[in-house]
Amino acid sequence: MMTPNPTLPRDDPAAFDPNRDIGRLLVSCPDRPGIVAAVSRFLFEQGANIVHSDQHSTDPTGGMFFMRVEFQLPDLERRREKLERAFGPVAETFGMSWRFSYAARIKRLALFVSKAEHALFELLWRQRAGDLRAKIAMVISNHADLKKTVASWRIPFHHVPVDRERKAEAEAKQIALMTGKVDAVVLARYMQILTPGFIAHYPNRIINIHHSFLPAFAGADPYAKAYERGVKLVGATAHYVTEQLDAGPIIEQDLQRVDHRHSIEELKRIGKYIERTVLARAVSCHVEDRILVHENKTVVFA
Amino acid sequence: MMTPNPTLPRDDPAAFDPNRDIGRLLVSCPDRPGIVAAVSRFLFEQGANIVHSDQHSTDPTGGMFFMRVEFQLPDLERRREKLERAFGPVAETFGMSWRFSYAARIKRLALFVSKAEHALFELLWRQRAGDLRAKIAMVISNHADLKKTVASWRIPFHHVPVDRERKAEAEAKQIALMTGKVDAVVLARYMQILTPGFIAHYPNRIINIHHSFLPAFAGADPYAKAYERGVKLVGATAHYVTEQLDAGPIIEQDLQRVDHRHSIEELKRIGKYIERTVLARAVSCHVEDRILVHENKTVVFA
Amino acid sequence: MMTPNPTLPRDDPAAFDPNRDIGRLLVSCPDRPGIVAAVSRFLFEQGANIVHSDQHSTDPTGGMFFMRVEFQLPDLERRREKLERAFGPVAETFGMSWRFSYAARIKRLALFVSKAEHALFELLWRQRAGDLRAKIAMVISNHADLKKTVASWRIPFHHVPVDRERKAEAEAKQIALMTGKVDAVVLARYMQILTPGFIAHYPNRIINIHHSFLPAFAGADPYAKAYERGVKLVGATAHYVTEQLDAGPIIEQDLQRVDHRHSIEELKRIGKYIERTVLARAVSCHVEDRILVHENKTVVFA
Amino acid sequence: MMTPNPTLPRDDPAAFDPNRDIGRLLVSCPDRPGIVAAVSRFLFEQGANIVHSDQHSTDPTGGMFFMRVEFQLPDLERRREKLERAFGPVAETFGMSWRFSYAARIKRLALFVSKAEHALFELLWRQRAGDLRAKIAMVISNHADLKKTVASWRIPFHHVPVDRERKAEAEAKQIALMTGKVDAVVLARYMQILTPGFIAHYPNRIINIHHSFLPAFAGADPYAKAYERGVKLVGATAHYVTEQLDAGPIIEQDLQRVDHRHSIEELKRIGKYIERTVLARAVSCHVEDRILVHENKTVVFA
Repeated sequence: MMTPNPTLPRDDPAAFDPNRDIGRLLVSCPDRPGIVAAVSRFLFEQGANIVHSDQHSTDPTGGMFFMRVEFQLPDLERRREKLERAFGPVAETFGMSWRFSYAARIKRLALFVSKAEHALFELLWRQRAGDLRAKIAMVISNHADLKKTVASWRIPFHHVPVDRERKAEAEAKQIALMTGKVDAVVLARYMQILTPGFIAHYPNRIINIHHSFLPAFAGADPYAKAYERGVKLVGATAHYVTEQLDAGPIIEQDLQRVDHRHSIEELKRIGKYIERTVLARAVSCHVEDRILVHENKTVVFA
Repeated sequence: MMTPNPTLPRDDPAAFDPNRDIGRLLVSCPDRPGIVAAVSRFLFEQGANIVHSDQHSTDPTGGMFFMRVEFQLPDLERRREKLERAFGPVAETFGMSWRFSYAARIKRLALFVSKAEHALFELLWRQRAGDLRAKIAMVISNHADLKKTVASWRIPFHHVPVDRERKAEAEAKQIALMTGKVDAVVLARYMQILTPGFIAHYPNRIINIHHSFLPAFAGADPYAKAYERGVKLVGATAHYVTEQLDAGPIIEQDLQRVDHRHSIEELKRIGKYIERTVLARAVSCHVEDRILVHENKTVVFA
Repeated sequence: MMTPNPTLPRDDPAAFDPNRDIGRLLVSCPDRPGIVAAVSRFLFEQGANIVHSDQHSTDPTGGMFFMRVEFQLPDLERRREKLERAFGPVAETFGMSWRFSYAARIKRLALFVSKAEHALFELLWRQRAGDLRAKIAMVISNHADLKKTVASWRIPFHHVPVDRERKAEAEAKQIALMTGKVDAVVLARYMQILTPGFIAHYPNRIINIHHSFLPAFAGADPYAKAYERGVKLVGATAHYVTEQLDAGPIIEQDLQRVDHRHSIEELKRIGKYIERTVLARAVSCHVEDRILVHENKTVVFA
Repeated sequence: MMTPNPTLPRDDPAAFDPNRDIGRLLVSCPDRPGIVAAVSRFLFEQGANIVHSDQHSTDPTGGMFFMRVEFQLPDLERRREKLERAFGPVAETFGMSWRFSYAARIKRLALFVSKAEHALFELLWRQRAGDLRAKIAMVISNHADLKKTVASWRIPFHHVPVDRERKAEAEAKQIALMTGKVDAVVLARYMQILTPGFIAHYPNRIINIHHSFLPAFAGADPYAKAYERGVKLVGATAHYVTEQLDAGPIIEQDLQRVDHRHSIEELKRIGKYIERTVLARAVSCHVEDRILVHENKTVVFA
């Protein structure tokens, strides 16, 4: 069962936010007749106007049902708790997992990086341009290289070196830095593997990006292997991190055509530009509450 | 106001159709709170299970609201009329344009062609492969060239020459051939301009395909003009035919990269393959009742 | 060392072929200065005009050099042998692998199919439309299902059942059917694995198509696995067949976006349309002599 | 006739540049036999090794021939003048327009901007990342808004207000700022129309980016028009600026799928991200000397 987000302190005054009265309800449950009717009647009775609504059913007979409703409800912030309480009985009737979220409560992100800056930069730039509706709460890195760059954006930078022998310590430090300040973690080319313990702190809240090829080239130096096989497409995959390395639910993918004229270096460069775009799109979907995870698969509402 | 489809005789026995009990309701009306709730409650009360539901609102305050619901209702064929009657009051409350359609009542198409066969062929093949859920009721052409090809598919072929001076006569003949047998017209590279009189017989039921370029090259020999400007993309646009030539609501578009190495002939060949795909996708959307037209724009539900 | 194609009997009179005097020279050798100069001087001295020329070097210092030249030489058919003989010393100087080919000598294909018709159909249609410059010499299948379809195209159809215990016999029969009549084999969704013995008869002349995903899903039922992981892209890969199953040099790849709304059936349908296009493009590249294979990689000249 | 670039002072010491000995020769002339042979023989005799070579002929009989050769010649900087002099007679024989360029002589760009920062930012970032091999010599703007941003990159920023009545004065000032310091001008969302006089100073050296749609929507507020027509693709076109507004030779184009769910604001946002990528790719092609212009068309070598 998903639980409503805890009340979070915000440093952005919601006073003039056009999103002030926009709420989102995400629901998943076994499919059966009457779910949409019940949810929309509930919102109607609460005085909410449905702005967007998207549903998905894997199979109307015995499958799973997923729903995302975006609604407008005057004075939403004040009525938040009452709304969530009132939804309880509806949810119970259908055995729903559910959560409400609030556009005004902008998600706070920790960006994890190593030395590469392209994915980090893209997120910073989109956030500043108003296209990524999130707060970059901090950047955490196992290297100090990007400290100055991050500082110029006036974002806290934490250098947490990761020693293979003492990874648990490093992760404890990272978690301490984030506690109460971060809603989701973005691995923006962070070249360390997280432990199951760390991952358990942020279930379906850690987003990773990695290259991807047709076919897959596992192990070290994938671009060299892809080059040797003469791939015609270079791509990237963004996914939620689970205990199974790089096998979590896929959020977004894209790729670009290449040919024999591209050197390994050029394949890497092209991959870099795809990575930054795919990761940024995935993070946008996450912070706009467009993603429901069921088993090892995402439903990403448009 | 959209009116429900008239009862149409069908030569496909619906007996074992997996789509037998699948209905679709398409609705458009001024947006206001409660529409989704009312529609889903209505369907629930009728005993229908919503399989897919997609909505779109241009603006929750004063905008237009569009909705497509696919539902399963046992014994749908028999309950069809009662269902449509019962929906009347709901529709009236919200000032809805609406129509029900029935997956078992497969749409009947007339394909209009001239000499080019690529778009025709794609539709025939997709229909036979089960990927275009339509009946190709007839092919009508102003030339006799494709008669033999069409005959080999056991589809009626009508050669209706079009004389510029006597176009009205030709169109009257075409309409006579189609009356009671055709639900929509597909211009599969039909090189004649239809008169407003003809178009009025099939409002938002005539689909055309034409090349498209960035920027646009109007008038004769667009491929030559595109070549001379050195375009890097060649595309195609499928749209509903309105009185304004090639300016009707766009249904689907796609394109492909080209470069200076492509001759005019090659651009045309590439355009041909895009055209067949874009047209086929547009026709699929139409026959699956995924398209709502408002003003000069389509809402195409996935 | 590539050897020139043997003289092949042709049933297409070259008399009025616009390609009559078009030849192609494909060369690969260790890179070093002077190769292009030597080749172009040779052609110039022979009276040939270079129409297209494309080169590729993996590394000017110690890498491999690849070249494709398309040229026009009046009365080419008659001068063919002399031309090839004259090139010998040039090739020897640079340690070249090389082959001449002649646009007028249209490549003859055997299409191998099982039950699926989409890839077969696309090739037949493109060939008839003049877009695939090949002769479909025969269709060979381990099933009889497509016999009638193929017959309607007036192309010889050979039903060669493949018994797992007696595959060698079946392959011997296939090879006997093709000997002297076929230049390349296209596996157009042929659901049998070829033995190394068969493959050795057509080195870099057997083209296969298979689905491909990011990441790869090996083994049975890849579409179901891709669905369960929630892939956002569905693709296909065409490659030359080598002894290593599905690991031969990639010729062409493409893919299409999908999302959670696509059922396994729909993913398969989308995959089907990508397969037919990717295979057709790969076969076109092959029959137009645009592909050089080096180690496990193709150079595909535009 | 293209003339060789004047000798330009450079502040980047070429000492350790891996591109130090890389030269490029671009040629266009009426096609006829022997051009490639003559050029490659010339380079061979000069001791140069051809690294890449790409040709294009619009028609071997009476068409135009285009060629780009990238070569390696030890001690190139010192032998530059001699090389260019020696090529004169070869060029004359074939009536060539030609130019040599030198990878070590990095092109210097002036970026023209107004208030939007996305295109500027992309170019700055790619340059810093080493992916745009150019020097950003200065930024010129008709507004002061981006002054601080540019300053943080330690790049000279010149605020040159443009008064409609006194545009000539403003342009004179711009040209004065650039003289001797700039090889090409990039209009990175510069919202002023340049006069023919200005354009004449930089023939085929001014690159502009603008949105593009299928079909085209001319005049004010193109995104609103595109929205009202319900376009399914949003794109951007980069081109050289000529006297004919937005009708110069196209360098690069790209686009992205959209649907009815995208508001005008979202179409603009998507357009923004395509613009930055398309412009960056076009500028890369320019500074790597990959573009030949003939009449109103580009040949863009890969």
